[in-house]
Amino acid sequence: MNATILRAVLPAAFALLLADRPPLAPNPLAPDEGQWLPQQIRAMNWAALEARGMQLTRDEFWHPERGGVLSAAVQIGGCTASFVSADGLVVTNHHCGFGAVNALSSTEHNYLRDGFVAATPAAELPAPGMVVLVVRRIEDVTAKVHAAQAEATSDLDRWQRTQEVIRQLVAEGEKEPDTTCSVASFYEGREYHLYYRTRLTDVRLVYAPPRAIGEYGGEVDNWEWPRHTGDFTFFRAYAAPDGSPRAHSSDNVPFRPEHWLKVSADGVQDDDLVLILGYPGTTERYLTSVAVADREGVFYPLRLDLLTRVLAVLERQANRSEQDQLDYASLIKSLANVQKNAAGMVWGLARNAVVARKQREEAEFRQWLAASPDRMARYGSVLDELLAADREASRTTRKDLVLGLALSSRINPFLRGICDLVAATADNRDGRGSGNLRRRFGSDALTRDLQAVQQPLLAILLDEVRRLDGDDAFAGRTALRPETDEPTAQVVAELLQSPLTTAAGRISLLESGPDGLAASADPLVKLALGLNAERDAMVDRSRNAEGRSVVLARAWIEAQQEWRGTSFYPDANSTLRVSIASVKGYEPRDGVRYTPHTTVAGLLAKHTGTEPFDAPAALRTAAESRRASRYFDPRVGDVPVCFLTDGDTTGGNSGSPVVNGKGELVGLNFDRVFENVSGDYGWSPDRSRNVSVDVRFVLWCLESVLPAHHLLREMGVWRDAPVPGAKRAPAGAR
Amino acid sequence: MNATILRAVLPAAFALLLADRPPLAPNPLAPDEGQWLPQQIRAMNWAALEARGMQLTRDEFWHPERGGVLSAAVQIGGCTASFVSADGLVVTNHHCGFGAVNALSSTEHNYLRDGFVAATPAAELPAPGMVVLVVRRIEDVTAKVHAAQAEATSDLDRWQRTQEVIRQLVAEGEKEPDTTCSVASFYEGREYHLYYRTRLTDVRLVYAPPRAIGEYGGEVDNWEWPRHTGDFTFFRAYAAPDGSPRAHSSDNVPFRPEHWLKVSADGVQDDDLVLILGYPGTTERYLTSVAVADREGVFYPLRLDLLTRVLAVLERQANRSEQDQLDYASLIKSLANVQKNAAGMVWGLARNAVVARKQREEAEFRQWLAASPDRMARYGSVLDELLAADREASRTTRKDLVLGLALSSRINPFLRGICDLVAATADNRDGRGSGNLRRRFGSDALTRDLQAVQQPLLAILLDEVRRLDGDDAFAGRTALRPETDEPTAQVVAELLQSPLTTAAGRISLLESGPDGLAASADPLVKLALGLNAERDAMVDRSRNAEGRSVVLARAWIEAQQEWRGTSFYPDANSTLRVSIASVKGYEPRDGVRYTPHTTVAGLLAKHTGTEPFDAPAALRTAAESRRASRYFDPRVGDVPVCFLTDGDTTGGNSGSPVVNGKGELVGLNFDRVFENVSGDYGWSPDRSRNVSVDVRFVLWCLESVLPAHHLLREMGVWRDAPVPGAKRAPAGAR
Repeated sequence: MNATILRAVLPAAFALLLADRPPLAPNPLAPDEGQWLPQQIRAMNWAALEARGMQLTRDEFWHPERGGVLSAAVQIGGCTASFVSADGLVVTNHHCGFGAVNALSSTEHNYLRDGFVAATPAAELPAPGMVVLVVRRIEDVTAKVHAAQAEATSDLDRWQRTQEVIRQLVAEGEKEPDTTCSVASFYEGREYHLYYRTRLTDVRLVYAPPRAIGEYGGEVDNWEWPRHTGDFTFFRAYAAPDGSPRAHSSDNVPFRPEHWLKVSADGVQDDDLVLILGYPGTTERYLTSVAVADREGVFYPLRLDLLTRVLAVLERQANRSEQDQLDYASLIKSLANVQKNAAGMVWGLARNAVVARKQREEAEFRQWLAASPDRMARYGSVLDELLAADREASRTTRKDLVLGLALSSRINPFLRGICDLVAATADNRDGRGSGNLRRRFGSDALTRDLQAVQQPLLAILLDEVRRLDGDDAFAGRTALRPETDEPTAQVVAELLQSPLTTAAGRISLLESGPDGLAASADPLVKLALGLNAERDAMVDRSRNAEGRSVVLARAWIEAQQEWRGTSFYPDANSTLRVSIASVKGYEPRDGVRYTPHTTVAGLLAKHTGTEPFDAPAALRTAAESRRASRYFDPRVGDVPVCFLTDGDTTGGNSGSPVVNGKGELVGLNFDRVFENVSGDYGWSPDRSRNVSVDVRFVLWCLESVLPAHHLLREMGVWRDAPVPGAKRAPAGAR
Repeated sequence: MNATILRAVLPAAFALLLADRPPLAPNPLAPDEGQWLPQQIRAMNWAALEARGMQLTRDEFWHPERGGVLSAAVQIGGCTASFVSADGLVVTNHHCGFGAVNALSSTEHNYLRDGFVAATPAAELPAPGMVVLVVRRIEDVTAKVHAAQAEATSDLDRWQRTQEVIRQLVAEGEKEPDTTCSVASFYEGREYHLYYRTRLTDVRLVYAPPRAIGEYGGEVDNWEWPRHTGDFTFFRAYAAPDGSPRAHSSDNVPFRPEHWLKVSADGVQDDDLVLILGYPGTTERYLTSVAVADREGVFYPLRLDLLTRVLAVLERQANRSEQDQLDYASLIKSLANVQKNAAGMVWGLARNAVVARKQREEAEFRQWLAASPDRMARYGSVLDELLAADREASRTTRKDLVLGLALSSRINPFLRGICDLVAATADNRDGRGSGNLRRRFGSDALTRDLQAVQQPLLAILLDEVRRLDGDDAFAGRTALRPETDEPTAQVVAELLQSPLTTAAGRISLLESGPDGLAASADPLVKLALGLNAERDAMVDRSRNAEGRSVVLARAWIEAQQEWRGTSFYPDANSTLRVSIASVKGYEPRDGVRYTPHTTVAGLLAKHTGTEPFDAPAALRTAAESRRASRYFDPRVGDVPVCFLTDGDTTGGNSGSPVVNGKGELVGLNFDRVFENVSGDYGWSPDRSRNVSVDVRFVLWCLESVLPAHHLLREMGVWRDAPVPGAKRAPAGAR
């Protein structure tokens, strides 16, 4: 165990000292596992990285005070993006910008379908919901958090104290001007880091390819290789003229980042070193066998089943009109993604026999313990306690999942709305029917597509709720008449006879206050009361578990580190990480090898003329002369489209810049392969592969498909590109 | 054009002379296209073959008088097999022996399901329908056939004279003792060869693996890679004690072939030279664009559609009981194979743009013609005439296909039986109701599963017949009431009210003779009369076309040879051929490479426990210790199962021995890949791949899965293997 590595973010002076010390574990020549913290990268054997193709120095890559190439990677929504010009141009995945492009689209200006190019800065469109977060500084606040936790008297108290100290640390940090802070927990609470960030909310859409490029292959190809998706979109961050973050204003000017990436048109080859920079969301590499068995046997199969049925309803509706298509596109896309992820988990956890491996490891751990009284004294009970806690937690897996979906405001805004209405009426917090509550519950948005969409979804989800029994039984189940043979669809139809399906009915309940609520005989009200009680219980369970976890799971991490005796990287938690990787194919099954590059020829071979393989005519025309393009790669024999690397990525790495040994952008990570979906529970050298769009395909689209030559000029790829509005260069000037 | 190559089978003396002449085209280093005649192989650049790994001399490989390694390849049913011991042991594909194993199986002794091992010669079971044909000598009879054809006064007359001279040649040849003769036409009748063969009808089943090995992957994997099918079965040919062929008799003894193959356990590696020996059935490499367009646009799509619907009916029935499963297994297997072939044709002809290529070639041919008055004089009209003939032929493609299926005695024995009954009654040939006719038409076999299977199949097929219109209209259509709106299923139900659905009714019609037939008002009789008239017309069309073809298509072949100026191999025609190939993977699509070996690990990874991926427990148990097996290949890291080569194969090559440069058996060809189904219309270096079971997998099954150690001993693979019945060798003696 090496504390210098574990304590990932150190005071800068100590970090600089480290840089000159002899190389420390982890060994960079080991298989490319790991989502390393910036400081861990600095501690690596740099000579070995150089042998693989690293041309940057440690400080160029990332310096704790001055930043570096790594600092160009920023967060955008739940994704990663990177600055690619001095004028705040950022590139991320099409699917990360999807919601914004979707929201900006109408049947009149269907940017989602047709793509979008802002020919001039003035034409760039404010992108709703898009926020760019730039990390400026990281501070280790472990001691402060641990001090607060040490005084706790119970698990819940520990959770509350942790929240409180974090709230204080954030408030303290945000005294610094133009700063947004957050605290992240590492190694199950062994460390806490405070992030100082610049939060840019004036983000504008600059360029989106047509959906038929940005989402080519759609759900059919999602999580698959070979892939031919141009999954990229450009935005620009704006700030006040003095550079400080400011809400959208016509006076704002392009944000000038401290670091941005040079874009390389040189491409990558097999076995090339690449670095994937970004903000991976969640992994669970250090779980027990019991917890993984619960994911494999209960959680993912049920999630897969329910989402499959939910999606069938949503897709039926989306197919009714172009407007419905636009209305439901984002929701369908995100649920379909989760659905296929669940399928991959079910497949991969079984294929990789993760539970059996965990059980083996736990047996080995017990032997290691038994060999030393000292170890027994320190860690003798930790595994058993953790297994017991995981067993206890798995009792409510089914219920938590089903209720979580039933109460999702995206999937079923009506039911969630009624539950919130009932809670607000019970609270009587804001007096009877304050303006905000009246606006929300008096709105027809709550009952949009009630009959066509929400009712059948309720029938699916409440049927599951109704069938929960034994320990699991749902508190408000009488409202669902579980004892009758009546189909749930019928029960739901009757529930929807409620006056709460009208705005007037909802306002009337709100005005009746706690007494009115208590007097209500409406079965829908009874159902909502039951659901709210379950929601409260769920929150309590979760807080207790979290409060306990920072003692128990933390001890398990400590014990594992000591037992394994190797370097450790913390589970993903949406903080800035680096994966060191190689361009590399793999063998998905016996007799089949996936090669690491795809081409425009392969894209065209998939073209059927119907979604999701309907390559735009402009692309097909441009493809005819692509041999003459500067992005044509003779080694690949084509303009490349996507490539594979063995990076260690997960959700949140979408849009991650993939850079070469010079720190130049060569691709944008956007997916993992199906065989790697379950990689969240363990990385595998044979199957852990992530998919990136080759930046040369991006550039080719900007040059030849849906032209935006000024962006090529701005990124320095085509320095002589004509400036829009300027007199056109004579033909042949290129 | 090189006459010495075209005249494939030459008098032996001339052939020997040839062997010493300088190398002739074809160039063996060219891509591995070609199903070469034995004599063409002798004429190849042997030094170049040696550079690729050939270790046999020309004469060892095949000598026109003495035979050689090639002579070990024999015909069995529509397949190829090879002798692998001095005692007449032959090995072929499981799917070639399927019908025989199926017929020998009962619910009591289900050899199809459980596999079969004859522990001693006495236990070997006579295999119904299996006949082994051993080529002894080949004679060029072109001059005699051409002389007969020269006197023809019409196309039909030419067909008849050809049949007659062939009949005479066969009769003449069969004066030789113990000889079965046949004449084959090459290059559309430019050459005719007479084959002298030994016909062995006492063929016994020696070893069959369980169907779950021999057909592992079933229809799901059929025509696919990666493949894990142990598609092999052993038979033994028997003869009279003097070696002459004789029907089954308990006095018969194992046939002693002149040539048999040594079996190699050394395996093959990527790029290794292999030779595929066998009897490819039919290719059409020299068709016109019009003929290929007809196959692509009409024939294969319709065949695919009809067979898909027919198979749905058959599978429903087969799933009813184990007996139904056995009853329909062979028919379903063979139709499903044709169905997937049709799908591959539809895909591949489009994918390879064969029609466009043919059109380009035809345009080039016209330019070549136009450049020389001499060429114009000789070949000026041939292409136009052929195109016109192909256009004419394509007018009845739909009708021929539909009627062919409707009248198939395997698919619909009832309708075919009624048509034959009506024909026999009209002929009155054998007097009213001779014994044979009474037996056939009085049998209940004709109406087996009439309602459950034959009636729905008739509804499918007669619906197509009923819808033929215009030029295509069916002669007996009034019986199908095409003018009404009645569903065809209803029409068929009414047709089956006929008394001919009973044995008594059929015998009664037979006895009524031509007059009774003429007087019959039974719509089923009217339908049969119409179908018979169409069948006669179809036969006439086919004979006329064949008679014409030996003038017209022959001229086209001549013209093409002169135009192309390269060596030529004749289309496959079920005669003995050799394909020179390499072990080689391919890229089925962008980003995917199929590697040329599969392994037992891959087989196990496919195992689901349900058909068609239900690996027997014995295999799974044996697999546990396979690393210790002599068939374990450290280069592959496993016991290999199947491999790919770029051989030029087609139907009829099933069971073909794949031999290495020493002439030793290394595999059994059993399939092509999906991308190569349309290879019948043109070989492609990128996609033409055939699938073989690795002989080491065969040997591993015989040693460790369903043991038959005596066969390993007989083949010389394991010389110390215990002899069944003999005292067992002490443990560890191996």
